[in-house]
Amino acid sequence: VKLTLASITPHARPARYDPVVADYVTRIQPYAPVETSSYRSADALFESLGRSTGRSAGRTPPVIILLDGRGRRLSSEDLARYLRRLQDEGRQRIVFAVGPADGWTDADRVRAGLLLSLGPMTLPHELARLVLSEQLYRAFTILAGHPYHRAG
Amino acid sequence: VKLTLASITPHARPARYDPVVADYVTRIQPYAPVETSSYRSADALFESLGRSTGRSAGRTPPVIILLDGRGRRLSSEDLARYLRRLQDEGRQRIVFAVGPADGWTDADRVRAGLLLSLGPMTLPHELARLVLSEQLYRAFTILAGHPYHRAG
Repeated sequence: VKLTLASITPHARPARYDPVVADYVTRIQPYAPVETSSYRSADALFESLGRSTGRSAGRTPPVIILLDGRGRRLSSEDLARYLRRLQDEGRQRIVFAVGPADGWTDADRVRAGLLLSLGPMTLPHELARLVLSEQLYRAFTILAGHPYHRAG
Repeated sequence: VKLTLASITPHARPARYDPVVADYVTRIQPYAPVETSSYRSADALFESLGRSTGRSAGRTPPVIILLDGRGRRLSSEDLARYLRRLQDEGRQRIVFAVGPADGWTDADRVRAGLLLSLGPMTLPHELARLVLSEQLYRAFTILAGHPYHRAG
């Protein structure tokens, strides 16, 4: 399964946590191919997904997971189980997207396979992206029985 | 009210997010005096608190808030309200402590005024400390009506 860590940032600019996110992405690679990408708007994200998933036979549509304060709160173990289920279902692409500062529209939300909340606290966009990248790494270590998760 | 952002780190070492935490601490200062400190063990933290709170009359004991996955999950607004309540009660010192990797003991927990959970996901110690510092800054901006929180 191929992962995309997408972010909606109207003004492209180097972000504070980019090096740390890049580090987590590197650590995820042994478990699954992963890429980061950024889009100027939610529409640009969905348009890009529509193009890239194409019409070729045998391809499953991408699973779109939007980070959303109104979403489901999963524990790290729950997220790991969810990723395993998607893998077991033969999903080929999973896109996690950290939304624009003013949030997703209802039209965006209905396109999502899952609305995922990181918890009850409101985090800045960049910090949510950092936490998400760490949680994805953690999820794969949980599935692999790697001691990272238990190390606290 | 004076805030302390304490962290239990058996091996003192410069941490990845120190500059960002320092930046949030600087941004909190206009609202409340705040300091960071680190301790080699939970015992060392509690011993230090016992000493510093002294026996002088008229001093309220510090409020100890331990970050704990089993704790209460507050929204950013809830945390702001909680801080305001402590201020209104005339509390002079509030200590937030991010625990050791293997967690707090039950003996530690009973000494806490509040066990605070940042959410259902397990975060690494350093990332929890970063999120906490951001949430404290956010809480003060909420209480002050500063637009930071609404800006997403």
